[in-house]
Amino acid sequence: MIIQSLQTDYYRIPLPVVLSDASHGEVTHFDFVTARITTADGLEGVGYTFTPGTGGAAIHAHIDRDLRGVLLGADAGRIEQLWKRMWWHVHFAGRGGALTLAISAVDIALWDLAGKRAGEPWWRFFGGCENRVRAYAGGVDLQFTLDALVAQTEGFLERDFRAIKMKVGRPNLSEDVERVARLRQILGPDQPLMVDGNMGWRVDEAIRAARAFAEHGVYWIEEPTIPDDYEGHARIAREGGVPVATGENLRTLHEFEQMIRYGEIAFPEPDVALCGGVTVWRKIAGLAEAHNLPVTTHGVHDLQVHLLAAVPNASFLEVHMFGVEPYIRHPIEIDNGYAIAPDRPGHGVEFDWEMLSNHLVR
Amino acid sequence: MIIQSLQTDYYRIPLPVVLSDASHGEVTHFDFVTARITTADGLEGVGYTFTPGTGGAAIHAHIDRDLRGVLLGADAGRIEQLWKRMWWHVHFAGRGGALTLAISAVDIALWDLAGKRAGEPWWRFFGGCENRVRAYAGGVDLQFTLDALVAQTEGFLERDFRAIKMKVGRPNLSEDVERVARLRQILGPDQPLMVDGNMGWRVDEAIRAARAFAEHGVYWIEEPTIPDDYEGHARIAREGGVPVATGENLRTLHEFEQMIRYGEIAFPEPDVALCGGVTVWRKIAGLAEAHNLPVTTHGVHDLQVHLLAAVPNASFLEVHMFGVEPYIRHPIEIDNGYAIAPDRPGHGVEFDWEMLSNHLVR
Repeated sequence: MIIQSLQTDYYRIPLPVVLSDASHGEVTHFDFVTARITTADGLEGVGYTFTPGTGGAAIHAHIDRDLRGVLLGADAGRIEQLWKRMWWHVHFAGRGGALTLAISAVDIALWDLAGKRAGEPWWRFFGGCENRVRAYAGGVDLQFTLDALVAQTEGFLERDFRAIKMKVGRPNLSEDVERVARLRQILGPDQPLMVDGNMGWRVDEAIRAARAFAEHGVYWIEEPTIPDDYEGHARIAREGGVPVATGENLRTLHEFEQMIRYGEIAFPEPDVALCGGVTVWRKIAGLAEAHNLPVTTHGVHDLQVHLLAAVPNASFLEVHMFGVEPYIRHPIEIDNGYAIAPDRPGHGVEFDWEMLSNHLVR
Repeated sequence: MIIQSLQTDYYRIPLPVVLSDASHGEVTHFDFVTARITTADGLEGVGYTFTPGTGGAAIHAHIDRDLRGVLLGADAGRIEQLWKRMWWHVHFAGRGGALTLAISAVDIALWDLAGKRAGEPWWRFFGGCENRVRAYAGGVDLQFTLDALVAQTEGFLERDFRAIKMKVGRPNLSEDVERVARLRQILGPDQPLMVDGNMGWRVDEAIRAARAFAEHGVYWIEEPTIPDDYEGHARIAREGGVPVATGENLRTLHEFEQMIRYGEIAFPEPDVALCGGVTVWRKIAGLAEAHNLPVTTHGVHDLQVHLLAAVPNASFLEVHMFGVEPYIRHPIEIDNGYAIAPDRPGHGVEFDWEMLSNHLVR
């Protein structure tokens, strides 16, 4: 199954609603980079990655200039071999950063090909523990008024979600606490409520916040501080009294290992489009299982619904309202709090390429 | 001192001699990315970074597409403020990788401007502990025959070097040991001989190699394994019996902190063109001093001769025969084993831009 072509494109997609969190400011566009790989048997694998508005050109340059030569003419089925070659070919300017996002897009395309070749949807191809996984709606809502936050939450519940995540890190902790208390009231005592700090706090601030949220039954506190401070995460978990989730800004299997070992987190949270692709994602899930931990996810729910459903230690799937949704046929199905993994071969995500082409960066 | 213009260029520079080490294979070109910043007072600051042949387009894209907007119109003197803004603007696709190399080039240009504005060479501008530093010649010679290795070493000694580094990681350890023994014989008992494994070994292999080299008085063993394995470095240092140096593949201040804390290394080895620029380099030097450690360097000796000379805990400067040497006026001066920091304002590196333009990638 020789790789015959690689097409990579960089899109800049406007968001219908400006999003906000504690570290990215106001986000008006997403950068979206795709990798399409065809093999001699006529199959096409599709992979993609994204960022909140910067770095897309560098990711595209890595795929187009650095990875192309590794891929063309190679056997698409030897994904571990290709992963290793991509990693070391660009290691000096890579080892994380834009390179990991570039490899992620390629790796997703290669595993999509593998699934299609087998005629199996990913959730079965990767072991098929279940075909569904509990899902939560991830709001990106730090600057929303309390009324808008409440309205969004009610909308999520109407759409059959049974768990919600909200942003925290307002200028005053009392505002966060008021908003958390209000959502807990709406959700009742048992439906999970997660909070996401997006790295906005110092360790002492995060501990103070976690303690204030604890009485409102917060399920986890996500990215309470920068991902570079492992010991800080351990202190927050121990002294704050709320389980810690993190991972969207970790870029290697080793960083996950260190965050689990030194950071004592409860919910490793890889994003398959950001952690090195399916190849790394599945090792992180196994690493978590070895540590008696669940695995949860960030973003790209259309891909990760399969990956979580397939493994025995799945926690919640984040369903995230990124701007790419209108460009994907078959939106994810939510049923009584569960996301359903589709039965189309591979990951089953089909883009409206013509609609996307309006946002192509040349 | 408002930033008026930013020019960034990407060059692909052929090497006169093909270089080789244990992880990059044969290197025929260097990627070289420059950043030139001018301010309203008519001064120009020059910064640059490099890689062994891949990733240059992504680094260039980060500067050109992502960092430009942060820089133009900003106060060039507020380097900490700009550094923080560059870091967070691209954090999602950054936090290491090509972004760190991009920021490094910009940061070097900004500090060059600061030195020029003060009319001081960097070594004085940054504290002026000394104006010279002990230097070693860094050979990139893994595939050299023993005769070629000996000839190179004799050439280094004729050029007034009093310390040498060689590559190790040949297919058989006995070959490495033979080569190390031969160089030790040429250098006599006291002139330092460093060895560099370029991440080629597993931990057990590195321990075995270090033990075999120890009797030949090896000064340090560099990059014995992948930079992602902190505890592995600690084991190699403790069980191998040779001090460990590493840092050319670390991309954040935090990674250096972790490598010192968990990895127990003896020689932190930042490269100012790869670690985030002068701003980060000087914090790493201070971090090392706080831990009672020296700081040494990798690459770009024309810049780092100043940085090492300025601080009180300098170990050896690596003088490295990268391909960019012919394009720089005023080659570094070596005097009886010392490299001399020049007295030209800023870093004092002047390029032959016309000669470089032959290798511009468009």
